[in-house]
Parts: sequence; C-alpha cells; structure tokens
Amino acid sequence: MENLKTYIEANKQRFLDELFELIRIPSISSESQHKPDMYRAAEWWKEKLLQAGADRAEVMETAGNPVTYGEKLLDPSLPTVLVYGHMDVMPVDPVNLWHSDPFEPEIRDGKIFARGADDDKGQSFMHAKAFEYLVKNDLLKCNVKFLIEGEEEIGSPSLPAFCAANKELLKADVILVSDTSIIARDIPSITTGLRGLAYWEVEVSGPNRDLHSGLFGGAVANPINVLSKLLAGMTDAQGHITIPGFYDDVVEVSAEERALMAKAPFNESAYKSAIGVKELAGEAGFSTNERTGIRPSFDICGIWGGYTGEGAKTVLPSKAFAKVSTRLVPNQDHEKIALLFKEHLEQLAPASVQVKVTPLHGGQGYVCPIDIPAYKAAEQAYEKVYGKQPVPVRSGGSIPIISSFEDILGIKSVLMGFGLEADAIHSPNENFPLEQFFNGIETIALFYDYFGSAKS
Amino acid sequence: MENLKTYIEANKQRFLDELFELIRIPSISSESQHKPDMYRAAEWWKEKLLQAGADRAEVMETAGNPVTYGEKLLDPSLPTVLVYGHMDVMPVDPVNLWHSDPFEPEIRDGKIFARGADDDKGQSFMHAKAFEYLVKNDLLKCNVKFLIEGEEEIGSPSLPAFCAANKELLKADVILVSDTSIIARDIPSITTGLRGLAYWEVEVSGPNRDLHSGLFGGAVANPINVLSKLLAGMTDAQGHITIPGFYDDVVEVSAEERALMAKAPFNESAYKSAIGVKELAGEAGFSTNERTGIRPSFDICGIWGGYTGEGAKTVLPSKAFAKVSTRLVPNQDHEKIALLFKEHLEQLAPASVQVKVTPLHGGQGYVCPIDIPAYKAAEQAYEKVYGKQPVPVRSGGSIPIISSFEDILGIKSVLMGFGLEADAIHSPNENFPLEQFFNGIETIALFYDYFGSAKS
Repeated sequence: MENLKTYIEANKQRFLDELFELIRIPSISSESQHKPDMYRAAEWWKEKLLQAGADRAEVMETAGNPVTYGEKLLDPSLPTVLVYGHMDVMPVDPVNLWHSDPFEPEIRDGKIFARGADDDKGQSFMHAKAFEYLVKNDLLKCNVKFLIEGEEEIGSPSLPAFCAANKELLKADVILVSDTSIIARDIPSITTGLRGLAYWEVEVSGPNRDLHSGLFGGAVANPINVLSKLLAGMTDAQGHITIPGFYDDVVEVSAEERALMAKAPFNESAYKSAIGVKELAGEAGFSTNERTGIRPSFDICGIWGGYTGEGAKTVLPSKAFAKVSTRLVPNQDHEKIALLFKEHLEQLAPASVQVKVTPLHGGQGYVCPIDIPAYKAAEQAYEKVYGKQPVPVRSGGSIPIISSFEDILGIKSVLMGFGLEADAIHSPNENFPLEQFFNGIETIALFYDYFGSAKS
Repeated sequence: MENLKTYIEANKQRFLDELFELIRIPSISSESQHKPDMYRAAEWWKEKLLQAGADRAEVMETAGNPVTYGEKLLDPSLPTVLVYGHMDVMPVDPVNLWHSDPFEPEIRDGKIFARGADDDKGQSFMHAKAFEYLVKNDLLKCNVKFLIEGEEEIGSPSLPAFCAANKELLKADVILVSDTSIIARDIPSITTGLRGLAYWEVEVSGPNRDLHSGLFGGAVANPINVLSKLLAGMTDAQGHITIPGFYDDVVEVSAEERALMAKAPFNESAYKSAIGVKELAGEAGFSTNERTGIRPSFDICGIWGGYTGEGAKTVLPSKAFAKVSTRLVPNQDHEKIALLFKEHLEQLAPASVQVKVTPLHGGQGYVCPIDIPAYKAAEQAYEKVYGKQPVPVRSGGSIPIISSFEDILGIKSVLMGFGLEADAIHSPNENFPLEQFFNGIETIALFYDYFGSAKS
C-alpha cells in the first residue's frame, strides 16, 4: 500500500468535489419537507458506491427513510466488514449564526464548513474513498458491505426492524463506524464503550387533595418531603448507588485498560471552568473520565410538585413527581435495573404515601473489547497514520443503534472516529478539518489491510 | 342578665333581617369591581354600630379598603375590649355549585346559606347584637371599641400600618375576635394558639448550562440530586427538624394544657379517610393534634427543576428550586429561624454547587395564655351557654393579623369562634347554623359580664 498517500494526494480535489455534492443535499431527517432529499441522498450514495467499486448497490425501503446498501463480496473465506454511516443531518437553526450557507460547503482555515461536513457525511464518505482506493489498486482483502441510513439524527427508529428483517444480508465479522471523535489532532483515540440507560418517572401520592400546610403540616406525610428523602437515599456520601444489587453485573475494567484510558489528557481546571463549577463530584475512587466512562451514574433529570409560581403559597401538596435516570455500563441490563429500582423504592416508601414507578426508556450499554482483531487492526492503523497508539475511550453517552447492532445482528462495532471536539456538530458552523478527512481515508484503508491480514 | 335569652328570642327576626342586609352587599375584597361594595359595607357597619349604642362610629380610610371604627367609652377605669372582625368575603366561584344565590341569604335546615354567613359577617355581627343588648339594658361593664376591616381575605395588607398610626385610638385590654370554629356543636373550644411561618425559596445552581447526562453524569454534581439531599436532611427519621438551634425557643406546653387539649375528640380513621391516606406521619412522641398545634413542622411546598414534560429527556440540569416552609410555634422568631435555616443549608451545601436562600414570607406565631382574665371570662361564658368547659385548641394555621396586633398594639386576642367545620367557609354553600348565631350572641354578652366583673 505504498501508493496510498500518493493516491489520496492525486485525488484530493475529486474527493472533495464528490463530498460537496452530498453536502449540498439538505437531508434533514427531522423535517418532513426534506423527505425527497433523503431519497436524493440515498440515490447519490448508490451511484457513488458503484463508482467506487461495489458489485451491487441499491436503495432499500424501511418503515421510514430509505437506506443505501452496497457490497463487494470477494470470497466467503475472507473476513467481512460492514460499514455503517448516516446520510441525514441535524437542522441548521439558528441559521443566522452561520458564517456561510450550511448547505454550500466552503473551505476556510483548512476546514470544510457545512452542515454534515463531519456528522456524518464527511466521516462516512471517507469509507467510500478508502474502499475505492483498495478496489482500484486491487488491494482489498476483505468482503465489504455498506449500510448508510437516513434516520440517525432522529434516533434510528426504523433501523432495528430493518436489521432484524435483513440479518443474512448484513452478516459480517465487524461493523466499522466513523461517527465519533478523537481526543485531539495529535491524540488519536477509539471509543470503546457507550453507557446504557434506564429512565423512569416516579410519582409519590399523599393526601387526596392539596392540603393547608398550617392545618395539616407535621401530621400528614408531604409527598415532596417523601420524594426528596427517597431520591436522596439512592446515593450515599461516597457517590455509590445504594439500590441493592445495582452493581452486581458491573464488570470491573482491567488495570491495563484503565492505565491506557488514563493516558487521555485531562485538564481539570479547564473542564471545571468550561461548565462553570468550582468542584467536581462523583463516585469515590474513580477519576472524572472513569466516572463518566466506566461507572454507572444516577441523575434526577427533572422534579416537580406543589406550588412553583411567584412568591409564597403555603400548601401541602397531594403529589410530587420526578424523572430519574441511571446511566449503565456494559453488562448491566436495563430491564433488571428497572426492576431493582422499583422494588427498592417501593420497599423504602412509607405507608403514608403511594409510590408509582413508570419506566420511560431503556437501552443497553456497549463495549468493544480492546483485544479483538478488528480493534487491534484499527489501533495499528491509527498508530501508523498518527504516530501514536490510540487511547481507548469509554464515552458516557449512549448510541442506541450500536447496542441494537449487537443485540440483533450479534456483531461488534469498532468506532473509528475522526471528528474533533471543535467541529461544532449539531451547531452552527459545523466543520471538519481537511487533514482529518484525508487522514481518515488513509487510516481506514490501512485498517482493511491489517484486518484482512490478521484474519486470513 | 336574666333577660338575655328572652331579649334574643324577642329580636331574632330583626337580628336576621339586619344581618341579611349586610350579606346582600357583595363585598369581595379580591375583586376590584367590588370596591364600591366595600364602602357600602363600611357605611352599613357605621350605621349599625350607632343604632346598637355606639357613641361614635366612622368609616376610616386605610391604604386599601376602608375600616369602620366605633366605640362606647364608659369610664377610663373600666376594662376596654376591642372587637375585631371583617366585612369582606371570599369570591363565590364555582358559582354553579351553590344551591342558592350566594348573596341572597336563605334559611334551610336551620342554617343561613350565603357567602359570609359565617366568615365573617355572621360571626362579627353577633358582637354588634351582644353590644346592643348590653347597652339597651344598661348592663355594659366595659368600654367597647369596634374595628371592622375590609381586607382580611386578602391577608390584611393595610391593617398593620393603620394600627401603627392609630395606637391610641385602638388601645384596649383585650381584642375579641369571632372568626374561628369550635370543635362541634356540643364540644365548645377556644383557639389559643396559631403557628408562625417562615417561608423561603431555595435555589441550587450547578453547571452554567444544562449538561448531557450521559457525557457528564456521575462526574458533575446534579443540582436536583443535591437539592433532594439537602432537603431530605432537614428532618430525621423521627420527624424532628435537624436545623441546629431550631427548637431552642420552643416553649414546652404545660401538662395541664396538653391534658385539656387531649379532651378534644379525635377520630383517627375518619381523619385519615377524609384526606385519603393510609397512615399518618409526624414527629415521634406527639399526637396528631399536638403535631399540628404545638409543634413546628417542615414542609416543602413546591419543587421544580430540569425536564418536567412528557416522556424521557435526559439532562443534568443547571439549576433546581424549592419553596420551603416551616410552621413555627409561639416564641420561635421567624427571622431567627430564617437565619438558622440559611446558615445550615449553606454549611451543608457541597462546594460543587451554589446555594441561594431567599426569604419570601414570615410571621410570628401567637398564643393566648389560658390563665389571663379575658380567657377565663370567655371560658366561663362558653361553659354557661354550652354546659361544658371549652377545650383550648392550638390551630396549626396562621392568622397573621393576630400576631400583628400583639406586635404593634401589644394586646392579646381571645378567639371566641362559633363556626363549625361543616360551615363550608371559602367554599360553595357557606352556611352558619341559626343556633350558633344566637348562642354566639349570648356567649359574647356573658363574656362582657364576666370580664367586666373580673377586672373591676
């Protein structure tokens, strides 16, 4: 693959011209007037995959927006890579904060400015171009499949059913995704974990109507007082979650991976000043990155009850409510956690009130082991391009479709992202450095080389 | 006073006719279109006091609605009684639930049905008629002053300043008020205590914006989590308030008064079923009536923060708020308590958040000693009419003007109420039993006799 860099160099302008065609299609999935644009984007992807060297490509219907599927199958004995990306983008409001038209890409300061420049048009298109290089130079050592969807920014509502209906078509050894970031230009990283989520609404009911807090206060349980006590009791002074059995399925992260994670640079005072807090707070015994990456958390996302208007109104309210979430780490099952939470809350609730727990949302966490061949191949590829071993990063957030891929298709994903925190995805003036775009193409091409060699 | 009963019997119809004139004036103080009715009611009271035997009566302006002042001063050496009552009433909505016109009194089942029948037109007018009896029969042994205001139902905003500006005019040995209830027709009682109040808004501020609960959850203090813990910690498992120094000024109620209070009938299962709770809850070591009557309480009147809409939205909110009140017992100073609360909360708050406490309302508690001559006279009067010693009752509520009278004028109030719980004050179909109306006139007249004799 000695001609990889020269191939990229020679084709830079064409790669950008092609990407800009895609960017100019305003494929905003949350706005129904852009439905025709979703089909335009899907057809565009079909053409581009065929041009890049796919043997087959087609636009396939789902319950929502179409997906583009493409493939080049060399030999059943070779490993198969399924590339996942999305062609849809976020809305552009507030549009007046953009310095250039969000759908007319412009290069300034070595960056492409446009909606979708990074997320995920720029990042997904790198795969098409790495694939093109490998095919045109007869260097492809894997079977390759592409699945580019059009509903990621609205939570991929149709994709799980599409996957379930197309298991054979999507069969692969690994899913390769470029939809995340690296820590910094000079600090490559690979997102190896995503947290799961369990989310409930809690309702505490006391008296059958709002009572006079003078006549009844002190003799009748106040639902807000009770709710505060119940929720306060869910964590202890060390930041541990006190729900019995909550940590039973938490897999301790290996010392090796913690040591690698600790290499991620972290400037505590910059972190604090960015969010405007004087002190951080969390579970004792873990660093900030570990608290969000490899440990579960308990957050009250909303609370309400009683009088919330201006001034003073005395009332002993009939009811109080909260929205409560836990972020879960891989191997914790959100349905089991929901059960434990409900049982614990009901057991703690005094007989003076009624407690109701309603599950509102749940999703499993995801982890990519750092010792599987695909991860090792990705690691080698980054190291070759960036000159440094990439840091495995556990992200505190959740990308539900990644867990769904594992659940439905039984395939692990490797998240080879090339975004930077400064790319302003989902915000005005989204951008993607040209350097990252071309480095990405190179890194991905190298991945196939290492992965094909390792497996063959 | 052997002709008291016959005088009342002989004048029953006239007493009612006169009261009905007052009731027909729709003097709703919270509705500005009724401002002219406030003046009509004040003029009516002036006329009625003069007819009843006052030497002087006048309508006096305040910063808000007018008051009617009247007096009959016999001799500076005699004790002086200041009668306080109010001519304004609550609104009548929902008017469709009334079985008769709220401002056209109707007698059904031995009760007067109308807005103000009890609160406080019926109850205050009993004083005019008791006074009339005593004057017409030359039996008055006290100087008498009347102060009838027009803003009680909106919190008496103008009366404290009026009192401060008219201290000499309002000088008296005791203030007599009929604006409360007795326990039951056959269980007379006198309200001897009212709780004070301190009310604050608490604001907990964390990060400078709402954060992604996945990316930050577990590493950054969540203001709702913190607020729940702070508020939960304000009471312990025994229902005691944990603010240091909170109980320092609480005067223990004498065993004698507690024994008397315990005579008040209390049906726990009826109480629970009326408000729809399975169990009561409160401070260990005290009965329900003591918990609301002679002990302070801590109630969260309102709480809000984060996402409170439908469904699940994950957020680690920037701020959380609560409205918090304590009901205080006599001798606790609401300003001192506010300071203790603020200090305690600020001391408990972790460095990861900012806490702000804003006092919104405060009022002192009130207690009427059961051994002062006016209380003894009231007790004797009830016993004579009802055949039973009245039970001293500590009400959990607050009537701020009663505390203001003590603060500004330095005069104790005796709360000789004759309402019943079934009178539906503030609600549709407010009513007042004729029996209570006439018994009230009789009891009040007897009060003057006992009080005048005791002091002279």
